[in-house]
Amino acid sequence: MEKRVGKHTIMFTNPPVIAATASIVGPKEGRGPLGATFDKVLADTYYGESSWEKAEQKMLAEAIQMVLDKAGKKPEDVQFLLAGDLLNQTISANFSARKFNIPFLGLYGACSTMFEGLALAAMLVDGGFADNVIAATSSHYGTSERQYRYPTEQGTQRPMSSQWTVTGAAAALVSRYGEGPRITHATVGRVVDMGLRDANDMGSAMAPAAVDTLVRHFQDSARGPQDYDLIVTGDLARVGSTLAVQLARAQGYDLSKNYTDCGLLIYADDQDTHAGGSGCACSAVVTAGHLMQQLARPEVKRILGIGTGALFSPTSIYQGETIPCIGHAVALEQL
Amino acid sequence: MEKRVGKHTIMFTNPPVIAATASIVGPKEGRGPLGATFDKVLADTYYGESSWEKAEQKMLAEAIQMVLDKAGKKPEDVQFLLAGDLLNQTISANFSARKFNIPFLGLYGACSTMFEGLALAAMLVDGGFADNVIAATSSHYGTSERQYRYPTEQGTQRPMSSQWTVTGAAAALVSRYGEGPRITHATVGRVVDMGLRDANDMGSAMAPAAVDTLVRHFQDSARGPQDYDLIVTGDLARVGSTLAVQLARAQGYDLSKNYTDCGLLIYADDQDTHAGGSGCACSAVVTAGHLMQQLARPEVKRILGIGTGALFSPTSIYQGETIPCIGHAVALEQL
Repeated sequence: MEKRVGKHTIMFTNPPVIAATASIVGPKEGRGPLGATFDKVLADTYYGESSWEKAEQKMLAEAIQMVLDKAGKKPEDVQFLLAGDLLNQTISANFSARKFNIPFLGLYGACSTMFEGLALAAMLVDGGFADNVIAATSSHYGTSERQYRYPTEQGTQRPMSSQWTVTGAAAALVSRYGEGPRITHATVGRVVDMGLRDANDMGSAMAPAAVDTLVRHFQDSARGPQDYDLIVTGDLARVGSTLAVQLARAQGYDLSKNYTDCGLLIYADDQDTHAGGSGCACSAVVTAGHLMQQLARPEVKRILGIGTGALFSPTSIYQGETIPCIGHAVALEQL
Repeated sequence: MEKRVGKHTIMFTNPPVIAATASIVGPKEGRGPLGATFDKVLADTYYGESSWEKAEQKMLAEAIQMVLDKAGKKPEDVQFLLAGDLLNQTISANFSARKFNIPFLGLYGACSTMFEGLALAAMLVDGGFADNVIAATSSHYGTSERQYRYPTEQGTQRPMSSQWTVTGAAAALVSRYGEGPRITHATVGRVVDMGLRDANDMGSAMAPAAVDTLVRHFQDSARGPQDYDLIVTGDLARVGSTLAVQLARAQGYDLSKNYTDCGLLIYADDQDTHAGGSGCACSAVVTAGHLMQQLARPEVKRILGIGTGALFSPTSIYQGETIPCIGHAVALEQL
């Protein structure tokens, strides 16, 4: 029954398969360097709805339906839907789940949600509780900015450390059967708070949490950076990823050769996103599109993904709190 | 490997033990009929903090520490902390988790959170991924009212269908080893939305979701109401629990003999809570206190608990949406 290696990392007995993924993004993400890797690019951020919130729900529900269709599954073939998002009371996930008759376990992991979902989905499948589990998440620039920061109409100037919330949704079907990359390891994050309190510099706040998980993953699994073809964090973006490399080096791990971040990959330098991308959809759509395509190449056998999340709220910032963060790691491998 | 019975209900191979529980409540809950069943009753709702939000975090962190102490465990003995709450971005859970070095999986299940946590904790233990998992949650009348409804200072009149958010926090240690009631079955809820939109009548909105789960649990497990000494929902309170009995009867299940609701149990009629209690803490503190005490009596062998949650937000109400709801069932048994 013992499936843990080391103190904190799970090594799956029968590594579950990512049998299918689906992704939808907004127009800005579609124009970015990964535009061709997404299943669908929206023409505008309202997607025919009366509010950005409803557009986000529509994207998320569509991504879930799309992953079912791609895998040739019906909702009744899926034992659990694991989903969450950034909005108050995770309404994008709740209202999307309403459209499917799938038992639903709501998550809150901020921008780490897809990796929290993948880790849990793999446990539920490998543990014998499900044949098929969907992990899904979404974010939207419009819903996020007005909830966390300012009304976008106000045109508040953003500092260069700020990041651009990705408009998009993604879903992954984690299965006991089928073909595809497998989830071999999961290292669940601890909440790390280094005392930062700048809601416009999430990358610096999250980097220590990502590195805490990364180091525990390496120690537990007796692996190092050299054992992965690619190590990719969720949304540390320019400022945070630079800090992550430094923090890892201080602990004896060299990330300089094969490390990147989804927030760096998703936008081009001339797209005016300042430090790069963020949001639940950032790591989710890059994993569903680009990383899955990388794992289909013969020369890419192993990717370590670390979904990163800043677990604050506007209320906690107003009350003078610092920003607690988390990183969940999942190893994706061709076996 | 197959641990499901029927379509949706899990029957655990080695039913995990609830090795310890801990509960803290506010003064109003302490004066209620279950006052003596809680581990700690606060003298006031600020608990020495500068805001209700910080008081809620303090209660939740203290409940987690208390359950560790009761079980004689240290944080490093616990593989996962599963927690969530009602506040935007689940800050009570996130900031409490910051105090413990335990890998953290954030949940959002609204008032069903404790039962979502117990179901998942049992899967993680029975699946071989953990020896010890803590499931925890909190709610606070002050933080909830001002976030969901009105500033309490405004003194808005509340309709008789409205419920009183329980101020409290609870934690349960779900373990592979030890003595105590065991989690034998779990039935994870589906999102059910019958089109109700009155944020002052959550009980009616949640009752169909509770009954959907209850009926699936009975069908899957080939059990019926008569197989349980007690069936208890989370926070349907007076209006919702009456409706639940009717809905169950329409599906052929008689709940009239051994059914109650945590929202009915926690306050006395003269405490002016209108329909009864609600909030994440409602089912959590009643389970941690009263239900565990019931299961220690020789004549109570089996309790079926169904945590209920209304998965809306103020934004979704403002945007004209109806209220999606969920119920997660867990069977607690002396074996």
